[in-house]
Amino acid sequence: MNLDALKSDLAGVALEDNPRIVQQKSRDFYWYSPVLKRQLENVTADLVAAPTSEDELLFILGACFRNNVPVTVRGSGTGNYGQAMPLAGGLVLDLARMNKVKHIGQGYVVAEPGAILADIDNETRASGQELRLSPSTYHTASIGGFVAGGSGGVGSIRWGGLRDTGNIIRLRIAAMDGSAPSVIDLSGADLAKASHAYGTTGVITEVEMPLAPAYDWVDMLVSFPTLRGAATCAEQLAGADGLLLKNLSVVDMWVTPYFRRHAPYVRDGEALMMVMAAPFAASDVAHMARRAGGTLTMRSDQLAEDVRRTLPAAFELGWNHTTLRALRVDPAITYLQSLYPQPSIADKVIKLAERFGEEMPTHLEFVRFDGAVGCFGLPLVRYTTEERLEEIIRIHEDEGCPIFNPHRYTLEEGGMKQTDEVQLAFKRRADPKGLLNPGKMVAWDNPSYDYGKPYLFPTLSA
Amino acid sequence: MNLDALKSDLAGVALEDNPRIVQQKSRDFYWYSPVLKRQLENVTADLVAAPTSEDELLFILGACFRNNVPVTVRGSGTGNYGQAMPLAGGLVLDLARMNKVKHIGQGYVVAEPGAILADIDNETRASGQELRLSPSTYHTASIGGFVAGGSGGVGSIRWGGLRDTGNIIRLRIAAMDGSAPSVIDLSGADLAKASHAYGTTGVITEVEMPLAPAYDWVDMLVSFPTLRGAATCAEQLAGADGLLLKNLSVVDMWVTPYFRRHAPYVRDGEALMMVMAAPFAASDVAHMARRAGGTLTMRSDQLAEDVRRTLPAAFELGWNHTTLRALRVDPAITYLQSLYPQPSIADKVIKLAERFGEEMPTHLEFVRFDGAVGCFGLPLVRYTTEERLEEIIRIHEDEGCPIFNPHRYTLEEGGMKQTDEVQLAFKRRADPKGLLNPGKMVAWDNPSYDYGKPYLFPTLSA
Repeated sequence: MNLDALKSDLAGVALEDNPRIVQQKSRDFYWYSPVLKRQLENVTADLVAAPTSEDELLFILGACFRNNVPVTVRGSGTGNYGQAMPLAGGLVLDLARMNKVKHIGQGYVVAEPGAILADIDNETRASGQELRLSPSTYHTASIGGFVAGGSGGVGSIRWGGLRDTGNIIRLRIAAMDGSAPSVIDLSGADLAKASHAYGTTGVITEVEMPLAPAYDWVDMLVSFPTLRGAATCAEQLAGADGLLLKNLSVVDMWVTPYFRRHAPYVRDGEALMMVMAAPFAASDVAHMARRAGGTLTMRSDQLAEDVRRTLPAAFELGWNHTTLRALRVDPAITYLQSLYPQPSIADKVIKLAERFGEEMPTHLEFVRFDGAVGCFGLPLVRYTTEERLEEIIRIHEDEGCPIFNPHRYTLEEGGMKQTDEVQLAFKRRADPKGLLNPGKMVAWDNPSYDYGKPYLFPTLSA
Repeated sequence: MNLDALKSDLAGVALEDNPRIVQQKSRDFYWYSPVLKRQLENVTADLVAAPTSEDELLFILGACFRNNVPVTVRGSGTGNYGQAMPLAGGLVLDLARMNKVKHIGQGYVVAEPGAILADIDNETRASGQELRLSPSTYHTASIGGFVAGGSGGVGSIRWGGLRDTGNIIRLRIAAMDGSAPSVIDLSGADLAKASHAYGTTGVITEVEMPLAPAYDWVDMLVSFPTLRGAATCAEQLAGADGLLLKNLSVVDMWVTPYFRRHAPYVRDGEALMMVMAAPFAASDVAHMARRAGGTLTMRSDQLAEDVRRTLPAAFELGWNHTTLRALRVDPAITYLQSLYPQPSIADKVIKLAERFGEEMPTHLEFVRFDGAVGCFGLPLVRYTTEERLEEIIRIHEDEGCPIFNPHRYTLEEGGMKQTDEVQLAFKRRADPKGLLNPGKMVAWDNPSYDYGKPYLFPTLSA
């Protein structure tokens, strides 16, 4: 890495090298995990560049290639797994200023990667459209960061996840393959080369995403005497093909105390189902919930306007915002990510909830998964030691509930714990020097790694 | 039944009693079935009334109640099961003139029952919206007839069927419970009282239906060397939660010769998959089909405009239009309706296809069913005798594939072969004299009927 030569090559480009600002731009929400917090605390880049156009981006990338400077791409830095943290230092490529919405069509939008999800929707809503999927950090996350580092979220109850065919139409990426980097358009099966790759295989310079119809979604809170009741009702709602929902979450009685601003709509000792429904579907949700033994405690379209304005949206009680709300009250809390496979979702949920009790408050997100109803868990964990966390993970896996470990910063360990041959092969071509987000793709560093123990990038201490 | 008194009570109302016209208005597409053709050939009403408003409709209904005249409601008469045929004579209530679209909102439409589906969409499309579901008789069927006599069709690949919560928002119905009939709004679980009831429990005077976004759907034909290849690929497409499809059908090599106007896009001896995809989803469909061994033989958005204009839409090759196209070529053909349950849909399809060969050409429609991928069969049958037809049905049921028998004119025999207690209880209240579409609800005539043999209404001969 030759930083002086890089600076000289980039003479006309605004670079940030104030260490405090560089460190700030080298961090994401990795502190959700006590493990990552310990491991990544001292990670920082040397420089930050924030291009405003694809041309400028290519110029910077080419100079970094020439001077062997690692490049870690950053959207808004709202990822939880250290995705955007530059383990090998070098340059952070901050795409926040490449934030234009370029074209809106019937059913799709073309945008620059740094565009904030909520800002995109503000523009598409004029045509009655909005993005299909977003994380709970909708108001701050960028579309490029979501595609590169996310997997689904709000909207997955209808559309499945980002990995599912059709949920990304096209990605335009810059490779890091020379002084004049290639630019490649990916679509169809090729999207897997760059989506959810943490920017290790290329830099997204443009995205084309499908749009869904925009509605004035109604937030609904339904209280249930038991977690089983809430989970069973949610599974029924999730399986109702004609019921237009945008999000569907369940939490148990240990979680609801963290929903402080929603306290008037929460019942002590009860589980809570949180639904975003299309206006014309809200009364069907209410009927079904009532028949399942639930009590509707809040319906946003029936609140006084001044009350409603003070409340966060229901999706900001779900996904990783559930964890965030708990963390704000109790910094010792962390979380896991699990899958409760069909059939008998509720049985698996209850078995694990009973086993761990207050140590692991239950949080479920219902989605469409491979053409059927799926149920993800994002349980809170009252953290004690890394050993106990590993034990909780093992118990889940022994019960047939896979864990997608949010306490790992590599692609493989947070995911399928195996080499993604498509991404690895593509990285060989698009990033021959291995300069893009080093340390995040285990297979690049060690193709025969066995995943029995956590992977540790050489710059980090155990 | 006192027809003279009725005529005198309805002095101010235009009534049709020309026997030829009355007979024409007493028929639907019952002739799809050789069994129903024989049984219902001589069915006719005595009179036809075609009200233009709810007030006039209530006035007619009240007079019929007073004079004990049976009333059979008719939309466009495109049902296949004799739904709209007046087994006990009396009055046919033709709702074709109650066809106004009354209100279009974001996500829903309110219409009179006689409004033609395509006409509704012509009005909603200005706001980028269209009906979620329609039969293949989209250009001629009425919304009231569809709700009263249909179950799903085009759009079910995304939204499931009409019975699924959310696919009907509200039905306004007139009961036949006095000289001044009650009018009742049904929503939520109460919709089951009047939807798919063949007008036996009330007369629909207004419908409120959800709308989906309207796209310039792309018709795609994909040829596969084998039926198994086509069915397997279709199941993959059906399970892709992010892939926005409107219809998804498969037919085998015995069916494609009936698609005469599509002959240039059909390969002899091959199976055919027919897809309606959103424009931005079409290339994903093409990719997935190619990887599954299919050859894209037609894509409507790549045809010359003058060629495209001569072709029927892809959905007019599917659902009951498949049967219709075969019938036009070979009047001896009829059909069945089956369900191939999960798992191993393709295995069940192939087993039955191989068992019957040319006698029963395979036709599949993929849908969402109870929150997962479902596969209905509408196989063609080269009809010989009623005994053989019954045998074919029995063989399906022995293989675990239920048959919804389209050769029966009663609600129960075409459906679940059991009393619908909700509809029966509601009919007792809404139609105490049993004047609404007599003979169609077995449970009304004989609550303990055992369904071992076909039900025969007293006016009909065996």
